[in-house]
Amino acid sequence: MSRIPKTTLKRLALYHRCFLNLRAAGVIKIQSSELSTKIGIEPATIRKDFSHLGELGRQGYGYKVEFVLEAFEKFLHIQNDDKQNCILVGVGNLGRALINFFTSDRFTNEISHAPTELVAAFDSNHEITGSTINNIPVFHSENLLEYIKENNIKYVILAVPSDVGQAIVDSLLDSGIEGIMNLTSSIINAGDIVVHEVDLGLELTTLIFTSIQEHAVKQETTIKDILQI
Amino acid sequence: MSRIPKTTLKRLALYHRCFLNLRAAGVIKIQSSELSTKIGIEPATIRKDFSHLGELGRQGYGYKVEFVLEAFEKFLHIQNDDKQNCILVGVGNLGRALINFFTSDRFTNEISHAPTELVAAFDSNHEITGSTINNIPVFHSENLLEYIKENNIKYVILAVPSDVGQAIVDSLLDSGIEGIMNLTSSIINAGDIVVHEVDLGLELTTLIFTSIQEHAVKQETTIKDILQI
Repeated sequence: MSRIPKTTLKRLALYHRCFLNLRAAGVIKIQSSELSTKIGIEPATIRKDFSHLGELGRQGYGYKVEFVLEAFEKFLHIQNDDKQNCILVGVGNLGRALINFFTSDRFTNEISHAPTELVAAFDSNHEITGSTINNIPVFHSENLLEYIKENNIKYVILAVPSDVGQAIVDSLLDSGIEGIMNLTSSIINAGDIVVHEVDLGLELTTLIFTSIQEHAVKQETTIKDILQI
Repeated sequence: MSRIPKTTLKRLALYHRCFLNLRAAGVIKIQSSELSTKIGIEPATIRKDFSHLGELGRQGYGYKVEFVLEAFEKFLHIQNDDKQNCILVGVGNLGRALINFFTSDRFTNEISHAPTELVAAFDSNHEITGSTINNIPVFHSENLLEYIKENNIKYVILAVPSDVGQAIVDSLLDSGIEGIMNLTSSIINAGDIVVHEVDLGLELTTLIFTSIQEHAVKQETTIKDILQI
């Protein structure tokens, strides 16, 4: 069975956000060339990516915003802007930053019309459990499994210290969780659960590689010249 | 002039880390099949990616760790584990989490042998300027431009509130900065400076798209079945 490649899925996430924003702006239809300029992806790539979701547009006609969004909603098993609930585990500096981010007006309304909603956070520090941060309740980690099962949570954002990440994941293997966004900077093994790594060190190195290449292009040289190959 | 695609650059960053770890572990040579298993990327893709850096290995012989790292060092304009210095702007919750991350033993030694080093942080809050966090000095933002020029800084990690990001970037356009890792969740325009967006909302949506696909594969159905196309 052929899977849609990860890089394509990431672009689909970008298209989804873009079309939600177009709808919010009252746009009915967008030409593929205009869409391409807006998001900086070649029209041919967009067409190929969209082919995974069916026939979403016709050559020279463009994409109907509502029609594209319906395909995404089918894909996401959601209807009419329903959200997929997710929870955060780990309310340290990073966890607090994540709560701020995922509860910001920019995230929930303006930018992304996100298909997800952060509904609760968990930590083992008794000083903060029982409180709320931006209306997100902070519960004790010992209630994590029960909460997931009772509320049918499918997605977890993991922002705990890297030495406790695996133990938490081990405790969630049979919880019904389908996906984990891993910000712990440690590799975690999660069996059948999909793990999406967000690795800030790797992102920084990617920036540097990209900068070096752009610098070379500007000087009308190439990576091969730099490497003398 | 042909550029190496962004997705390839991201994989190159991953290979670089992997080979640094191999050297640290005393590994002299690695078979391409073994490398492939280790990082979860097809051997054909690895070979194609490495072709951007020259002839790094021969079919059936594998890759010499030191030889591959030398190519990376040429590419990065560094020698013998020299670091590229970078600075952080914005010391809120996210900034503190980033300092913890980039100064952790895991980042500087174990995991990544990063080609970068965080050397200073900047904020406009007088209550924290003048202090240090994990030995990283926190300076006032008004000294940002001067510091960049005096210390020949090329890379900035931007973690300020999204409404002030663009103004800071505007002030840095002629500073000599070559790259910005943007964690503000706002689009910023930076002229010739390379901007690498780290968008946690999009990462979360990507996780959900990936999970839905894996769920479909497990049920021996396909995305096209879900979409009834």
